[in-house]
Amino acid sequence: MAAADASSWASRSQSPSPTSSAWLILNQFQELSSMLEESNAIRDKFREIGIDMDTAVRQFQSALLPVHYLPANEVPTAIAKAKENVPALQSMMVRLASTLLDSKGQFYRYHDHWRHQTQTVVFLLAFIHWLETGGLLQHKDVEDQLLLLEVVRTDSFFVDLDDYLIGICGLSNELSRYVVNRVTLGEYEVAERVSKFLNDLYAAFRLLNLRNDALRKRFDGLKYDLKRVEEVLYDVNIRGLGSKSTTGGGGS
Amino acid sequence: MAAADASSWASRSQSPSPTSSAWLILNQFQELSSMLEESNAIRDKFREIGIDMDTAVRQFQSALLPVHYLPANEVPTAIAKAKENVPALQSMMVRLASTLLDSKGQFYRYHDHWRHQTQTVVFLLAFIHWLETGGLLQHKDVEDQLLLLEVVRTDSFFVDLDDYLIGICGLSNELSRYVVNRVTLGEYEVAERVSKFLNDLYAAFRLLNLRNDALRKRFDGLKYDLKRVEEVLYDVNIRGLGSKSTTGGGGS
Amino acid sequence: MAAADASSWASRSQSPSPTSSAWLILNQFQELSSMLEESNAIRDKFREIGIDMDTAVRQFQSALLPVHYLPANEVPTAIAKAKENVPALQSMMVRLASTLLDSKGQFYRYHDHWRHQTQTVVFLLAFIHWLETGGLLQHKDVEDQLLLLEVVRTDSFFVDLDDYLIGICGLSNELSRYVVNRVTLGEYEVAERVSKFLNDLYAAFRLLNLRNDALRKRFDGLKYDLKRVEEVLYDVNIRGLGSKSTTGGGGS
Amino acid sequence: MAAADASSWASRSQSPSPTSSAWLILNQFQELSSMLEESNAIRDKFREIGIDMDTAVRQFQSALLPVHYLPANEVPTAIAKAKENVPALQSMMVRLASTLLDSKGQFYRYHDHWRHQTQTVVFLLAFIHWLETGGLLQHKDVEDQLLLLEVVRTDSFFVDLDDYLIGICGLSNELSRYVVNRVTLGEYEVAERVSKFLNDLYAAFRLLNLRNDALRKRFDGLKYDLKRVEEVLYDVNIRGLGSKSTTGGGGS
Repeated sequence: MAAADASSWASRSQSPSPTSSAWLILNQFQELSSMLEESNAIRDKFREIGIDMDTAVRQFQSALLPVHYLPANEVPTAIAKAKENVPALQSMMVRLASTLLDSKGQFYRYHDHWRHQTQTVVFLLAFIHWLETGGLLQHKDVEDQLLLLEVVRTDSFFVDLDDYLIGICGLSNELSRYVVNRVTLGEYEVAERVSKFLNDLYAAFRLLNLRNDALRKRFDGLKYDLKRVEEVLYDVNIRGLGSKSTTGGGGS
Repeated sequence: MAAADASSWASRSQSPSPTSSAWLILNQFQELSSMLEESNAIRDKFREIGIDMDTAVRQFQSALLPVHYLPANEVPTAIAKAKENVPALQSMMVRLASTLLDSKGQFYRYHDHWRHQTQTVVFLLAFIHWLETGGLLQHKDVEDQLLLLEVVRTDSFFVDLDDYLIGICGLSNELSRYVVNRVTLGEYEVAERVSKFLNDLYAAFRLLNLRNDALRKRFDGLKYDLKRVEEVLYDVNIRGLGSKSTTGGGGS
Repeated sequence: MAAADASSWASRSQSPSPTSSAWLILNQFQELSSMLEESNAIRDKFREIGIDMDTAVRQFQSALLPVHYLPANEVPTAIAKAKENVPALQSMMVRLASTLLDSKGQFYRYHDHWRHQTQTVVFLLAFIHWLETGGLLQHKDVEDQLLLLEVVRTDSFFVDLDDYLIGICGLSNELSRYVVNRVTLGEYEVAERVSKFLNDLYAAFRLLNLRNDALRKRFDGLKYDLKRVEEVLYDVNIRGLGSKSTTGGGGS
Repeated sequence: MAAADASSWASRSQSPSPTSSAWLILNQFQELSSMLEESNAIRDKFREIGIDMDTAVRQFQSALLPVHYLPANEVPTAIAKAKENVPALQSMMVRLASTLLDSKGQFYRYHDHWRHQTQTVVFLLAFIHWLETGGLLQHKDVEDQLLLLEVVRTDSFFVDLDDYLIGICGLSNELSRYVVNRVTLGEYEVAERVSKFLNDLYAAFRLLNLRNDALRKRFDGLKYDLKRVEEVLYDVNIRGLGSKSTTGGGGS
């Protein structure tokens, strides 16, 4: 028995013939192996771009921080300085888009590598836009500012709608902090402007049938931001510090 | 002051003029709302197909179960009966693929809705293929059997490679159970056939540089399946029940 | 008040003077930032080497797999072929060691990046050593085979003792599988050899006061390996297939 | 057969000869056992020092707590009293450092035994430094205050950079509590001082590319501390209680 078995098992050690099951299995897996290596390489590229975006977004955000405290007349200079970070982000978008060209239709396969960074970029661009115009930066304008419309936007690369909306929730949160800091500086009229904007934003958000849980949770935060801003506006008005009241203080 | 404030707040309730910030915000969000409704509707479609696939896969698997216990001569009939479930699955693949046609490049956005079901389908088709031929059903043959190659396979719809590999790990696990059941029925030669196949499969899998954690974990399971099958083959041979041993060993 | 506050806050926007608190903080953090970048870069290097080791270890293990099934006379060739993978691992050890030269005394800071791979290398080298000599590869011999003694071993680079011992537990597990496969092939005398070796190993392990939880758990596995091997030896001897019994079968 | 087997098994119970495999295994493991005992003993020492540090850190922290509530003129006495705990901590650092001398390059092997305590010491020393100077205690000053620079600092013992930074995040958190308590006592000008300090700290932290997850999480907390302090400053200023406002605002 031993001898018979040994010879039977021995057959495994020989190179499998090109039609044997073992040969077919190995042959397919060699092909699959190349495919896996390829997608691993792509994933590594996205990971690298994601890390670079982290750094660029951090610098962008740092440059914008001072607008919370600067005298009003110095804010435009700070914004201009912060905007100098945008070209670096644009070039990363081009890198993302061109890496995706090699793997069409796989945006959502690798999306996690730049999702969070994009949300922060949306928030920062929208904050700048609000500071400059008092209005809301639109979805297509984000893509425009990131060069996606002109240069690289294709069906395979874009700013995901949920990422845009989460970025806008970030703006709402930042504005609730901004209003506290500017009213502290004595710019009482900011309270009403922010309150009105967040009210409009909140009303608009309520049009949306949100299914994405992460987005839903962020939207819940928007209600607290709005409430906080309303309380600041109340504090300002009850003390007669509001923009329209030229006479008297709250307690008088 | 109260009156002034009241009128200031009251102005919010009026319809915003078409150029006001509020109007622009509402306007954009109405657009976004349609886009969200659209993607919600698509998601609902996938969700529905996913539920239908669950049912179809469950029936397919139930129909195949008897091959563990049936007398060898009745197995082909059981397989034939199980295969009657394939057209239902094919039609679901067509539904998936045509739903994806409306949302190009979003395979991985909605993939979770059919991922698990596809893995089980791969496992079942590969099990049938092994029962009939003793070989491994290849990735492209899975797509072929699901009509993807002939009818609907496009860049936007396919069987994800990781899903194929996880399905094959499922086959390995099923075979470690199958070998126990068939040896129980006295079909001792099954042990060597399965052992050889799993060895070939294990060696082939080791060619792959697995980064996907779920897949890596399933591959770890493959080692235990192989070890279990080796133990069965050992039990068979130590008792001289192996296919090639006609003279018998100890215990005879 | 507003004016006074504004000027107070405005001071923040000016470049801080070199003695101000803000300047001192920024100054230190710029220094810390370089330090962090440096350690991030080192970590990235180790991560990369770790990934390369993964691949090399996988190939080494694949090449050694056939020794479970090959006829005895073909095993030496398979071992020789497997050993061709050792130089690649040696060169990775050199890479690890030279990267550690730049960060003295930080072996255990980055150890997780090569810990698991080293344990597998220990297991594979010890398996080869057992196949060739029947003995246990010693800790210093592992370091020798990986060139650590001759070329790169310093106080700052070595094979951690726990990693060595966990690798040896891996050998024990592999041998419990090996014995099943070789007895299946009719090489009954392997059972006694493995049983004796694992007994010696188990006795030796019991000398150790194990505090490391991971190691303790692996050592528990060693008991099961030993028990499994004893059962195989029992099966062989009860059937009269043992090396010393030239007459009769188990039941006779 | 039974007799033959019995004698074969019996041979195991005899003392192995000095050249046998069993002897070599035992021999090595006796050596490894001493090595393990040694590292177990070192670990026990660190464990003991860690427990002593826990106690000393607890007493230090308790002694410093009253600065939240004491009248301003009594704070220096409380700080002086708290500082009396520093020599005990210094002597523990000397114990740690001299224990590490016997196990060079193994700082990160045993680091967990004093990591948390060191982070708290950093926080407490930095809190005292802020109370006394309004500035940030630097990394090298922590090492200086713990005698590491003068006496024991070597390549093998130091305050890990991440531990320093986590300690500083602890300071930020304590200050957000401190500001609430001092403003409650009527020291309104504290709000602006803390706000300015945390702003500088936050801006500096943003220079860092944080990869350590624990540290990243703590840094996220810093944002909330800052926001809380800004709210307090807002409350103070909206009520005209700010340091620079002598004319009062609403409510006066």
